[in-house]
Amino acid sequence: MKLNCDMGESFGAWTMGRDADVMPCIDMASIACGFHASDPVTMQKTVALALKHKTTIGAHPGYPDLMGFGRRQFDCSEEELYAWLGYQIGALQGICHQQNTLVQYVKPHGALYNTMMKDVAVLKTVMQAVKDTAPDCSLIVMAIPDRQPIIEMADRIGIALMFEAFSDRAYDEYGFLVDRRIEGAVHQSAEAIISQVQQIIEQGSVTTLKGHTLEMKADTLCIHGDGPHAATVANALTTWRKNDAN
Amino acid sequence: MKLNCDMGESFGAWTMGRDADVMPCIDMASIACGFHASDPVTMQKTVALALKHKTTIGAHPGYPDLMGFGRRQFDCSEEELYAWLGYQIGALQGICHQQNTLVQYVKPHGALYNTMMKDVAVLKTVMQAVKDTAPDCSLIVMAIPDRQPIIEMADRIGIALMFEAFSDRAYDEYGFLVDRRIEGAVHQSAEAIISQVQQIIEQGSVTTLKGHTLEMKADTLCIHGDGPHAATVANALTTWRKNDAN
Amino acid sequence: MKLNCDMGESFGAWTMGRDADVMPCIDMASIACGFHASDPVTMQKTVALALKHKTTIGAHPGYPDLMGFGRRQFDCSEEELYAWLGYQIGALQGICHQQNTLVQYVKPHGALYNTMMKDVAVLKTVMQAVKDTAPDCSLIVMAIPDRQPIIEMADRIGIALMFEAFSDRAYDEYGFLVDRRIEGAVHQSAEAIISQVQQIIEQGSVTTLKGHTLEMKADTLCIHGDGPHAATVANALTTWRKNDAN
Amino acid sequence: MKLNCDMGESFGAWTMGRDADVMPCIDMASIACGFHASDPVTMQKTVALALKHKTTIGAHPGYPDLMGFGRRQFDCSEEELYAWLGYQIGALQGICHQQNTLVQYVKPHGALYNTMMKDVAVLKTVMQAVKDTAPDCSLIVMAIPDRQPIIEMADRIGIALMFEAFSDRAYDEYGFLVDRRIEGAVHQSAEAIISQVQQIIEQGSVTTLKGHTLEMKADTLCIHGDGPHAATVANALTTWRKNDAN
Repeated sequence: MKLNCDMGESFGAWTMGRDADVMPCIDMASIACGFHASDPVTMQKTVALALKHKTTIGAHPGYPDLMGFGRRQFDCSEEELYAWLGYQIGALQGICHQQNTLVQYVKPHGALYNTMMKDVAVLKTVMQAVKDTAPDCSLIVMAIPDRQPIIEMADRIGIALMFEAFSDRAYDEYGFLVDRRIEGAVHQSAEAIISQVQQIIEQGSVTTLKGHTLEMKADTLCIHGDGPHAATVANALTTWRKNDAN
Repeated sequence: MKLNCDMGESFGAWTMGRDADVMPCIDMASIACGFHASDPVTMQKTVALALKHKTTIGAHPGYPDLMGFGRRQFDCSEEELYAWLGYQIGALQGICHQQNTLVQYVKPHGALYNTMMKDVAVLKTVMQAVKDTAPDCSLIVMAIPDRQPIIEMADRIGIALMFEAFSDRAYDEYGFLVDRRIEGAVHQSAEAIISQVQQIIEQGSVTTLKGHTLEMKADTLCIHGDGPHAATVANALTTWRKNDAN
Repeated sequence: MKLNCDMGESFGAWTMGRDADVMPCIDMASIACGFHASDPVTMQKTVALALKHKTTIGAHPGYPDLMGFGRRQFDCSEEELYAWLGYQIGALQGICHQQNTLVQYVKPHGALYNTMMKDVAVLKTVMQAVKDTAPDCSLIVMAIPDRQPIIEMADRIGIALMFEAFSDRAYDEYGFLVDRRIEGAVHQSAEAIISQVQQIIEQGSVTTLKGHTLEMKADTLCIHGDGPHAATVANALTTWRKNDAN
Repeated sequence: MKLNCDMGESFGAWTMGRDADVMPCIDMASIACGFHASDPVTMQKTVALALKHKTTIGAHPGYPDLMGFGRRQFDCSEEELYAWLGYQIGALQGICHQQNTLVQYVKPHGALYNTMMKDVAVLKTVMQAVKDTAPDCSLIVMAIPDRQPIIEMADRIGIALMFEAFSDRAYDEYGFLVDRRIEGAVHQSAEAIISQVQQIIEQGSVTTLKGHTLEMKADTLCIHGDGPHAATVANALTTWRKNDAN
C-alpha cells in the first residue's frame, strides 16, 4: 500500500502544507501544477525535495482557479480539459527534466477529481489526455466499489490505474467521498484518520458516515499534508509500516 | 534564411494575429506558452495548424504578465527565470506530445528577449534552462554584431544557437532593436518591412534608425503576424522566395 | 427604449468590440470590471469615451474567469458573489471618480446574468450587493414574462429595476435566452437583429426559436458591440430612432 | 503615534498574517486590494474585523503581481499606475460601502511604496490618483529626512500626508529602508523591533544599519502582522501605550 500526498500547494509568498515534514513519510508526491496552486519555483523546490527522499513524483493538475483552490465546480468542454491536462502535466515534466527526473503518475485535484469519478465522459478525457501527454504515467482514480467499467476503459486506452482510498475523508453509502460542505466530511482527529487507515489496510474496508461497512480495496492511500494532524499521521503511519515490515 | 513568426498569441475569447494566413508562409512558428499570451486550447490549435503546414514548432516563453503582454520589464531572480522557462517549455512540450510532435527551438518573448541580449547573466540562465528542459532545442538570439562571446557561452553549455534579424523593427547604432517607445521603432509600411528583409538577405546588412549601414548576418528572420501588413508581407516574401528558388 | 451595449471588454494588448463606433449610438454603456474582461486602463478609456458621448455608465461585473470570458458556469457561495460584486462595482466607481462621474446602473455579465435569472437566491444576492455597494444604481434584469416576483423582491430591497430585451439572441418558449451552444441561439445577420429590435419596440413581442410569438415589454434593449454587424446595427437603430423622434 | 499594519494579505485558500491577533492592537489597518494579495472575500472579512475593533481602514494597493507579492520592481506608465490605483482603492471602497464604512487613507505596498519614495514623478502620480479617487483620504509616505518637497507637492495637489517610520526594517544612511535582499534588512528579534519602536517614539530617531543615529519624526509607525513576532510585538506595544496613557 503506497502512501500518496498532495505536495507543492504553496503559491508565491503563501505557504501551504508541511511538505518538509511529510515528504520523508510518503511514497508518492502529487505535485500541484500552477492552475489551482503552486508556481514554477514551488514546483522546482518540491521536485528537489521529492528527489532527496526518493519519493515518486506525480502531477496533480486541477481546474484553472487559484482563488478557489480548484475546489469549485468548473464548467469546461472536453477540448479544454484535454488541453489543460496536457499543459499542466507537461509543465511539471519540464521542471522534472531540469532535475533529471520524470513525472510517473497523474492524480487530478479537487473538483476535477470528483467530477471525473461521477462523469464517465470526463474520466475518459482525463485518461486519454494523460496517455497522450505522458504515455508511461499511471492514473490515480478513486477506489469505488464497481470499478470494472473503469478498468475496461483504461485497458482500451492503454493506461495503468491505481485505485486510491482516503485516510481523512468520510465515505458515503455509495463509496464516494462525502461533500466537503457536509458535517463530518473530513475527519477532525488524528485518531479517526489513523483508524480509517488501519481498517483499509488490515480489513480492506471503511465505515461510512452513516455507520455501514463498505469493502475498500486500494493500491494507494491518500494522506493530507496541510491539516493540523499532517505530521502526526505521517509519522504514526511510517512507524506502523516499519513495524509491519519487520 | 528561415522565416520565423510569433504565433498563438490569442488568449481566451480574444484573438491576436492572423495565424491562419501567416502559418503557410513561414518556416518556424514561435508559440506563446501562457505567461504573456496564449492558453492551453490556443496552444493546441496553433500546434495543429503548424503540423498542417509542416512548420517547425518553437516555444515562445515570456514573463508572467498577461496584462502587459510580456513587454514590461520584470524584476526576477535567476531561480525564478530558470523555473519559469522549464514550466513554459514543458507545457508546450506536453501539448505537442498530445499531437505526436516536439518543440524544436526556443525564442524568448518581448522584455525577456531584450533583457537576455543586454544582460549576460540572464542569457546564461536562459541557455541553461533550455538545455536542461529540452536538450535538443536550439535557442534563437538576436543577431548582434559582436556575437563571439555568446557563441562561446553556448558551446560551453552545449546548446545550438540561431541568430535572428528583424523585418519590421528599426535598429540602433549598436545593432540592438530601438525601444518601442521611441518614434520610428517599428516600420509602419509593408514597403519598409520588405525592403529591410531584402537588404538583410541580399546584402547582409541593415540601415539603422540614424541612417547608417550595419552588417547583419542572420540564420532566421522574424516577421510579425499581428500588424496590418502581416499577410501582405508574408505573401510577398513567399513569392520572392519561390522565385529565388527557381 | 434605451439602447445598452457591453463596452470595455478589451484586455491588455487584446482588443474586443468596436467601442469607438458603437458608443455614439447607445444610451447606456455596460463597462466590464476586470473579472471576465477589461483592465484598469481599458476601463479608464471606456469611461472617457462614454463621457465624451454623454452615455450613461453602468458596471458590467462577471465571474472571475478571464480565460473563459465569464461565460462558464461558476460555482460560488452567496458570500463570494456578494463580495465579488462589491469589489467590481467599487473598482469601476473608483475609475469613474477619477473622471468626476458615477456608475449609474449594474448589469451582470454572461453566466452570472443567466444564473441570476434562473436562481432566485442568486438574484437576491445580486440585488442586495448592488444596493449595499451603490444605493442609487438600478439593476438590469432580463425581461422575462412573469416578472412580478422580481419586482416585489426589488421593492423589498429598495432597488430600481430595468427590464432588458436582447436584439441578437434567440428566445426559448419560456422567454429565456437560448443557450449559446444551441444552433440558432445568436442571430447571424444584421437583418434578423434589426427585425427583432423593431418587433420588440413596435409590437412589444419577440418570435421564439420555435416560431411562437411571446409578449416582450422592456425598458432597455441590449445590442452587441463585438460582432460583425455591430456598427451596422447601431447605425441602423440610430437612424431609425432619429426618424421616429421627428 | 498611530500604529499601522498591513492586513488582509491572505489569498483564497492561503492564509498570511495573524490578523485576528494583531487587529485589536493597531490604530490603522492597511488592507490589501487584490493586486499583490487579498481577494474580495478576504477584504470583506478584514473590513469586518477592523470595524469590530474600531480600527481605521486604509487601502493598501500594490503592483498587479500576485506571484511576486508586489515586491518585484514593475515597469509601468503613469497612466497605468493612475488607473491601477483608482481601481484598487475603488474596489476596497465598494467592499467598505457594503458594510457602511469608508476607506480613510492609502498606503502603497512593497515595490510601489519604494518606487514612489525614490521617483518624484511616481509619487506625484500616486498623490493625484488618491486625490481624484478618494478626495478625503490621506496618503502614508515614508518618513524621510528631507520631506519639504513632498509636503509642498501634497499641498499643491490638496492631499493630507502621514509620515511613516518602520518598526522592523533597518534604515540606510539616507533614511531609506535597506533593500530586503541585504543581510540585516529585517530585524529578526522581537527585542530589536521593540527597541526601534521605543527609540522612534521617545527619542525621535533610529539607528541605521551602519550604526549611525538618524532623526526620525513620524506620524505613524508600521508594524508587521505576518512575522514570527507579530503578536508579541503588538501586545508589547499595546501594553506600553496603555501604561504611557496612565
